[in-house]
Amino acid sequence: MRVEDLDTPVLTVDLDALEENLDRYQDYYTQHGIGLRPHIKTHKTLAIAHMQMRRGAIGLTCQKLGEAEVMAWGGLGQDLLVPYNILGKQKLDRLVALATQARITVAADSDVTVAGLAAAVKGAGVTVGVIVDVDLGGGRTGVQSPQEAVALGRRIHDAEGLELRGIMAFPTPPAVRGGIQATLAALDKAGLPHPIVSGGSTKSALQAHEIPELTEYRAGEYPVGGAGHLREGRHTVAQCALRVVATVVSRPNDGRAILDCGSKTLSASLVQFDDGPCAGYIVEYPEARLHGFSEEHGHVDVSRCARKPHIGERVQVLPVHPCPCVNEHNELVAIRRGNVEAVWPIYARGKIR
Amino acid sequence: MRVEDLDTPVLTVDLDALEENLDRYQDYYTQHGIGLRPHIKTHKTLAIAHMQMRRGAIGLTCQKLGEAEVMAWGGLGQDLLVPYNILGKQKLDRLVALATQARITVAADSDVTVAGLAAAVKGAGVTVGVIVDVDLGGGRTGVQSPQEAVALGRRIHDAEGLELRGIMAFPTPPAVRGGIQATLAALDKAGLPHPIVSGGSTKSALQAHEIPELTEYRAGEYPVGGAGHLREGRHTVAQCALRVVATVVSRPNDGRAILDCGSKTLSASLVQFDDGPCAGYIVEYPEARLHGFSEEHGHVDVSRCARKPHIGERVQVLPVHPCPCVNEHNELVAIRRGNVEAVWPIYARGKIR
Repeated sequence: MRVEDLDTPVLTVDLDALEENLDRYQDYYTQHGIGLRPHIKTHKTLAIAHMQMRRGAIGLTCQKLGEAEVMAWGGLGQDLLVPYNILGKQKLDRLVALATQARITVAADSDVTVAGLAAAVKGAGVTVGVIVDVDLGGGRTGVQSPQEAVALGRRIHDAEGLELRGIMAFPTPPAVRGGIQATLAALDKAGLPHPIVSGGSTKSALQAHEIPELTEYRAGEYPVGGAGHLREGRHTVAQCALRVVATVVSRPNDGRAILDCGSKTLSASLVQFDDGPCAGYIVEYPEARLHGFSEEHGHVDVSRCARKPHIGERVQVLPVHPCPCVNEHNELVAIRRGNVEAVWPIYARGKIR
Repeated sequence: MRVEDLDTPVLTVDLDALEENLDRYQDYYTQHGIGLRPHIKTHKTLAIAHMQMRRGAIGLTCQKLGEAEVMAWGGLGQDLLVPYNILGKQKLDRLVALATQARITVAADSDVTVAGLAAAVKGAGVTVGVIVDVDLGGGRTGVQSPQEAVALGRRIHDAEGLELRGIMAFPTPPAVRGGIQATLAALDKAGLPHPIVSGGSTKSALQAHEIPELTEYRAGEYPVGGAGHLREGRHTVAQCALRVVATVVSRPNDGRAILDCGSKTLSASLVQFDDGPCAGYIVEYPEARLHGFSEEHGHVDVSRCARKPHIGERVQVLPVHPCPCVNEHNELVAIRRGNVEAVWPIYARGKIR
């Protein structure tokens, strides 16, 4: 079957591009002696996670427990990191169960989280690793100072069934090195172990070596790229493996084309670039601007295109943010040189708990 | 089971609020003699569609063929409108099959679409209704003038197996009345029938009577409201039936709270209000600002809250755009006065084709 035989809109991944990205990034981390722990939130797909592990990844990152459960039953539970505060009886029960199936590390940034983890594992006969989430300017979760990191690290270290495994931060551009060093120095002074020093974000993934303290790195989008990575020069068009194949369903006037993919296909991600809002990049029409969407329509300004698309024509759209885009879909169609090689279920889709 | 027993994040609908909205809007349309044709893209759920039909809806609107197929097998194929250009052999084959199961009307705004429809139904022994999509300033799909509407209407009218059923526009605030009148006058002059004159959008749903030419109205969000409708006074907090129950998972500092719902729970919809970006409204903390998200984190500024949420506390979030929010979820939990009355599968989720 050819890609042209697929009805649209359809989520596809180009296997040549995917494999090249996987090799390139794995080579970088191998070369620099940093563990690559791919973030499966981007693709949520067992097949790609297996490809990542086979290339030398040290384990996987999952943002929610439900994603980790899928990876575990999918044969990928060797070493899972869930960089998230796990709270509440239902999730803690699931975490203890998962720890019997997989090696698991979670993150914590509060006494409340650590107390819950400690109570859940007590007497359960399992070990759960914990890393301290440190806020180095990302402005999301994380303790706010080396002193807080030490205090929380000690609680983890002292809790039966929990194992202090180090620290994490998000994101980790080179500029945060000082914060990492300060945190590690404080932990060292307190005699607390930190075998894991985990950085993250594809944006600075190839600068990880500029923070030699990092032992491992969480990157999600590197296998597939996207319109943002293209714009910022991290991926070429050819390296942007994730593509929504869409059809032009309307050409109301000379300057406007409407695609059959909107926010329920691409996700509602709309990025403000210098030249206006962008919902994706159209491979066949680089001058076109996919500047907005309705739920099932992509709104394209084609006024700057010399040749203009006709109704019924198919185009490939690089989503502006691959992760939520993938999460709209049940299946990912793997393509090589135009041939459909596989249809992969996106089993971790919708695993928000 | 109580709502407090559900793990978070979880998508819920308050049944008292839902039913009140359904009654209120149906009463309005009944009173004004306009047919209400609810748009199921918002809830994608058979149970709610049945509630809408039982209250007197004349039929349902589905934005994609796949949604219409779900409604047909769900016992709701009495009168389905798909206001979309259906193109390509695969969808046309499905449309013909669906027309044996349901009364179906689609929209068209080009000769290409009409030619495809005509070829598909020819000799198939089915009738497909077609309405002309008219662009009255919405800037999406639709013919650009009454003259184009007449030309396309005539092609539909003359095609064997197609039945010209009128016109549609989106959106249809009172200001577009002149455009509708001009289009209808042109059709009348050409002797073309227009039993359906279809308006749409919840924003102007209760102004439909200001365009007396409308025979029916497509509204999607009215059953559930949302943060945008709340802000603009169309729904009160109590009338906003769709609520994501979330847990505070981190309180990194005094001004920041992080929820366990991000763009994969609420959708990536971020609306720019006067006072900044908004991803949702937190019922228990009206002064809080849910100003952004990561995929699994909601980023909340609680600096203006007198009382501040603690880690582990649960809150209800009104999404800023209910339709893509629902599309992130597999199930919708129906709640009445805190009791779980049903768990509804969102069968039309992900039906992008």
